[in-house]
Amino acid sequence: MVKDQNIKYLFEPRSVAVIGASSNKGKIGNAVISNIIKGGYKNKIFPINPKGGEIEGIKAYKSVLDVPDEIDIACITVPAKFVLESVKECAAKGVKYAIVITSGFSEIGKIEEERKLVEAAREKGMRILGPNVFGIFTAEVSLNSTFTGSVIPSGNLGIITQSGALGVVMIGQATVGNIGLSAIVSVGNKADVDEGDLIEYMIAQDRTKVILIYMEGVHEGERLVETLKRATKIKPVVIIKSGRSTRGAMAAASHTGSLAGSDTVFDDVIKQCGALRAENMTEAFEWSKFLANNPLPAGENTVIITNGGGAGVMATDACEKYDIILYDDSNHLKTIFSPATPEFGSTKNPIDITGQAKAEDYVKAFNAALHDPEIHSVIGVFCESSLFTHKDLDMAVEQNYRQFKAAGKPIVFCLLGGETVDEYARESRRKNIPVYNDVYEGVAALGAMYSYKRYAEEKEDEVADFKFDVAAVDDIVDNARQEGRSFLLSHEGQEVMRVTGIAVPKSMIAVNIESAVKSAAAIGYPVVMKVVSKDILHKSDAGGIALDLVNDEEIISAYEAIMRNCRAHVPHAVIEGVEISEMVQPGTEMIVGARIDGSFGPTVMVGLGGIYVEVMKDVSFRATPLGRREIMAMIKEIRSYPLLLGVRGEKTRDINALVDTIIKIGAVIRNCKGISDIEINPLVLYEQGMGARAVDVRIILSREER
Amino acid sequence: MVKDQNIKYLFEPRSVAVIGASSNKGKIGNAVISNIIKGGYKNKIFPINPKGGEIEGIKAYKSVLDVPDEIDIACITVPAKFVLESVKECAAKGVKYAIVITSGFSEIGKIEEERKLVEAAREKGMRILGPNVFGIFTAEVSLNSTFTGSVIPSGNLGIITQSGALGVVMIGQATVGNIGLSAIVSVGNKADVDEGDLIEYMIAQDRTKVILIYMEGVHEGERLVETLKRATKIKPVVIIKSGRSTRGAMAAASHTGSLAGSDTVFDDVIKQCGALRAENMTEAFEWSKFLANNPLPAGENTVIITNGGGAGVMATDACEKYDIILYDDSNHLKTIFSPATPEFGSTKNPIDITGQAKAEDYVKAFNAALHDPEIHSVIGVFCESSLFTHKDLDMAVEQNYRQFKAAGKPIVFCLLGGETVDEYARESRRKNIPVYNDVYEGVAALGAMYSYKRYAEEKEDEVADFKFDVAAVDDIVDNARQEGRSFLLSHEGQEVMRVTGIAVPKSMIAVNIESAVKSAAAIGYPVVMKVVSKDILHKSDAGGIALDLVNDEEIISAYEAIMRNCRAHVPHAVIEGVEISEMVQPGTEMIVGARIDGSFGPTVMVGLGGIYVEVMKDVSFRATPLGRREIMAMIKEIRSYPLLLGVRGEKTRDINALVDTIIKIGAVIRNCKGISDIEINPLVLYEQGMGARAVDVRIILSREER
Repeated sequence: MVKDQNIKYLFEPRSVAVIGASSNKGKIGNAVISNIIKGGYKNKIFPINPKGGEIEGIKAYKSVLDVPDEIDIACITVPAKFVLESVKECAAKGVKYAIVITSGFSEIGKIEEERKLVEAAREKGMRILGPNVFGIFTAEVSLNSTFTGSVIPSGNLGIITQSGALGVVMIGQATVGNIGLSAIVSVGNKADVDEGDLIEYMIAQDRTKVILIYMEGVHEGERLVETLKRATKIKPVVIIKSGRSTRGAMAAASHTGSLAGSDTVFDDVIKQCGALRAENMTEAFEWSKFLANNPLPAGENTVIITNGGGAGVMATDACEKYDIILYDDSNHLKTIFSPATPEFGSTKNPIDITGQAKAEDYVKAFNAALHDPEIHSVIGVFCESSLFTHKDLDMAVEQNYRQFKAAGKPIVFCLLGGETVDEYARESRRKNIPVYNDVYEGVAALGAMYSYKRYAEEKEDEVADFKFDVAAVDDIVDNARQEGRSFLLSHEGQEVMRVTGIAVPKSMIAVNIESAVKSAAAIGYPVVMKVVSKDILHKSDAGGIALDLVNDEEIISAYEAIMRNCRAHVPHAVIEGVEISEMVQPGTEMIVGARIDGSFGPTVMVGLGGIYVEVMKDVSFRATPLGRREIMAMIKEIRSYPLLLGVRGEKTRDINALVDTIIKIGAVIRNCKGISDIEINPLVLYEQGMGARAVDVRIILSREER
Repeated sequence: MVKDQNIKYLFEPRSVAVIGASSNKGKIGNAVISNIIKGGYKNKIFPINPKGGEIEGIKAYKSVLDVPDEIDIACITVPAKFVLESVKECAAKGVKYAIVITSGFSEIGKIEEERKLVEAAREKGMRILGPNVFGIFTAEVSLNSTFTGSVIPSGNLGIITQSGALGVVMIGQATVGNIGLSAIVSVGNKADVDEGDLIEYMIAQDRTKVILIYMEGVHEGERLVETLKRATKIKPVVIIKSGRSTRGAMAAASHTGSLAGSDTVFDDVIKQCGALRAENMTEAFEWSKFLANNPLPAGENTVIITNGGGAGVMATDACEKYDIILYDDSNHLKTIFSPATPEFGSTKNPIDITGQAKAEDYVKAFNAALHDPEIHSVIGVFCESSLFTHKDLDMAVEQNYRQFKAAGKPIVFCLLGGETVDEYARESRRKNIPVYNDVYEGVAALGAMYSYKRYAEEKEDEVADFKFDVAAVDDIVDNARQEGRSFLLSHEGQEVMRVTGIAVPKSMIAVNIESAVKSAAAIGYPVVMKVVSKDILHKSDAGGIALDLVNDEEIISAYEAIMRNCRAHVPHAVIEGVEISEMVQPGTEMIVGARIDGSFGPTVMVGLGGIYVEVMKDVSFRATPLGRREIMAMIKEIRSYPLLLGVRGEKTRDINALVDTIIKIGAVIRNCKGISDIEINPLVLYEQGMGARAVDVRIILSREER
């Protein structure tokens, strides 16, 4: 979790060695050295080849140890069996980063071989990028040390990719889309350096305006979360994570050796970090390009300006899908758009300037939006008509775009139609004008920008701190471990709740009829009675539970019945007595949980409880630590959230009590290393001010002390 | 609902008149006549213009009545105020179809003016397309009677569009996409002819391979459903309906004058009809094109063949999204793909032939899939690499495509990368080879094909018939109407249930304490007591309900309390007594409903009941009539369906009883014209064989007898 202070040298090396450099055109060792030279890298280049001599016109050394200078990065391209030796030599030489391009390690099951590379590097303080990467391109020093055949355009998009093949694809797409790169790094097997390290550099680097990440599995998730949160306050981060589907996750695991975590958790946590998750490459590039080239809007008011009613309706649908707010002060709209709208058009948003609109009419309407301070962003929709030649489009699109950009207002253009429009769209996209062939695409790009803006402008959410007697919980855990258990018993779980101040139903243990009657009176009727015996696991099946007991008589007969039933059901059971508990009043049943997630470490969860959680899967997740506002955001994400506000005239539930409970179990999972899972289901939530009751608590212990 | 026997004349007219034909280049009347001539229409053309003379070289008549021949269709382009007169003349002349291109009717609120057109036409048996349309293009007779400036390519896609502007856009997109049209018709305000009529023709016409519909509002939904169901058994239908969002629906309503129904209902019903709903134009065209040009697969086994692991994972994710089944007999896959896959690749699906794969390796792998009878469709994924030139792509893509097509196996190609790939993709798309720039697009097209195939191959679902005493229900309705009510009282609703054999809780009306005690004893404790009074609508608020009464004493005190509460709450209420009902045993609470939908007429609904229905909106809809299989499909669509199969060791619920209940209320809504809405919430569903209880039944009467 420590920041890598040297990361600058990976992106701005003063010298690069290529281990396995070759004059043989077919070899990767040749591709890498040639790309470095062709790319215009100005600093020192050291080809390393046992034969020495000259490679691509540069003096080659027989060993990296022979190089008379310091080496910041060394690209290793030798066959897998020689990689460890090369790594050792580089480490001995004091190289800062070894980029292991060679594949054939953990991705084909050779985990031990990969571990050895890292070990050898760490001994000398060297770090490893890879293995199984395609190298690095970094515009800062014009270094292209990849083996791709493509020329990489410089610009302001920073790309981090787990897949080398998709890295090559992205370079191609960047070229087609005329979006240059500030850097592209593939992380491959992530044996050492991972996304966290690389994002760290890109946050601070001015050249990078947007960060685009392709990932399959998460590595050091806690650090990733922390880094992403900081990054997105400064610049947008777009993430594609494949392995969304169950089967896709399996395929991802088999091909990179990284275990893909649950996609739901990933999705929620990425949102929590303010990063934008794109489903596919096209979307990722569209968003990145739009975000890199356009100003953030000053506010939420968007207008659609269209010459076709139907297209306007589709744009409206798309706005709802992508969470864009359509401005609807109809008087104001009428005032500013009337001059541009014919009688039979509409100044309601979408503004329909009708099929008779010429380029000048668009200009008029756009100008009205441009100069009106109430309007913060515009979606221009054009249906092809005979009134639009290439020149008209130029007038309506390009000129307006420049003005909007200068004024700090984002605008997207959706051009619908045939050859003329298609050709114009392609041309203007090359000029980085945000022109789209479908309303959904244009609106999605603007929607991504709004999502980002909302996150970036949010105030820091202060981490909700909660202090409790950690030692007391640890004692309970230790005791259970000493008894050889990997979980806590029900009353131990309740004890953990009491330590943290989470209310549980009142409850007492009684060892005979008399004390049962007394306990019931102390707790207050109605009560529930349950047998207490380690030998009886399924209390209900054994007839060991009696509900809704309302007076002393019922206590007496229930006690007798339970003893009779249990003795009959489990003859040799040692029965310690019965537990008398408060009969919990009905309320809204929630589930809250906290666990050590395989990817992101300590996470919390909330959802609709009872039997619905399994079926409806109406739950949301967050990585910890987190503040009250983010917890509220998590609660609002569940579909059943309106239940908590009260339906059918019910009063609002005690949402504060729910937030407190989440904070508390979050603190337990973070502080008590012996616990891996806490689940309260149901947590019965009452009216505002009336709190909640943790009715059933299940706590699982860590396999080993974390 | 009667089929239009003349519809052939709209698509294959023997003569066309243009009312308002003009030599003036700027006028629509000129655009239409010019397009007809330029389009190569071979049959008779009659320009009509009060000035007579010649227009575009053809003799013009002063009035349509002067034309010496029969006229099949007349395009009316005169200003709105002259349209009615023209319609009347056309009708008098015996024209079969008047295509009213002129706008300015119901879409701007002139509903009465529009009604008059239809009335005038109907008197003489003429039909009207429009008003507010762009005309019709029909390849069968090479007629382009639209006013668009574009040349319309002939082919096999039939388009029906509610928006003229989007019609022009679609013509453009068809040209760019190299997909010709068999016909394109805009329906505009749908005053008379609507989608149902037009689909009817396209079903029977061989030339049309795929039907594409853009719609905003539904008109004569029952007929649309019936027609669509027949159509999709014969050819695919792709539908874009805008106004998905609440705000979009408002915008749609304002711009076409058609009331857009609930989007959820539309979505479910469209699926029921086997049509494919596309979200946007791009998707709609991609699907249509793929379906029109490619064979349906023989079975469900799909393989992904890729040279990039990450891209393979994304394709796998996309397959899950679009419901494509990946073949996974790993032994068989190994046998057939091993020869094409290097050691470090993978013969598990996705088949990863690795980044070193050349065109020949793709050919080898594709051939293995082509010749293996177990494999029914293929997704080819290419990540750009230096191994792929234009020529290589030709070998790997085009040649294979021809072979697959000839063999009746669908294949899609996803080409990811930069300039080379982009250019090749564009070229091959022009040749109608299914090449895509993103894996999600290609997989979506294949997914649409599988959706269609599954529907088309399903056996006809026999309509579930249910006979009951309709007159008995009508009597209950009539009685309520005579009392001036627009709804049934609770006991009347229960009576309707009894008539149809839907079980309700046992219940009796008691008018005093003595009879209340007797009734409770007769029904059996525990019971529920509810006030009966027309003046008290919200029984609960008035303190008019008492639950779980277990003995005579409790009956007596509850009776007194209810009377006291209700008198205090609604002082002037006439209280008829109380209803004593069986206390219903807990089970799974469902909601079932039947109503006259504004768009589709009699529809049914099922969902998770209780308070969850409002919040979770976990419901699905179907248009009636329908069979048991479709009802099961509707039930399976709700997210909470697994609850019915039993969770946590519970037994399966009585799903048959649920299906029966839906059939029964469906029959009531279809047969009892006085009823517009039936809602049973909750319908408590018990274990298999134990039936269900309709606990609360609300029935609303039609505003007027339907």
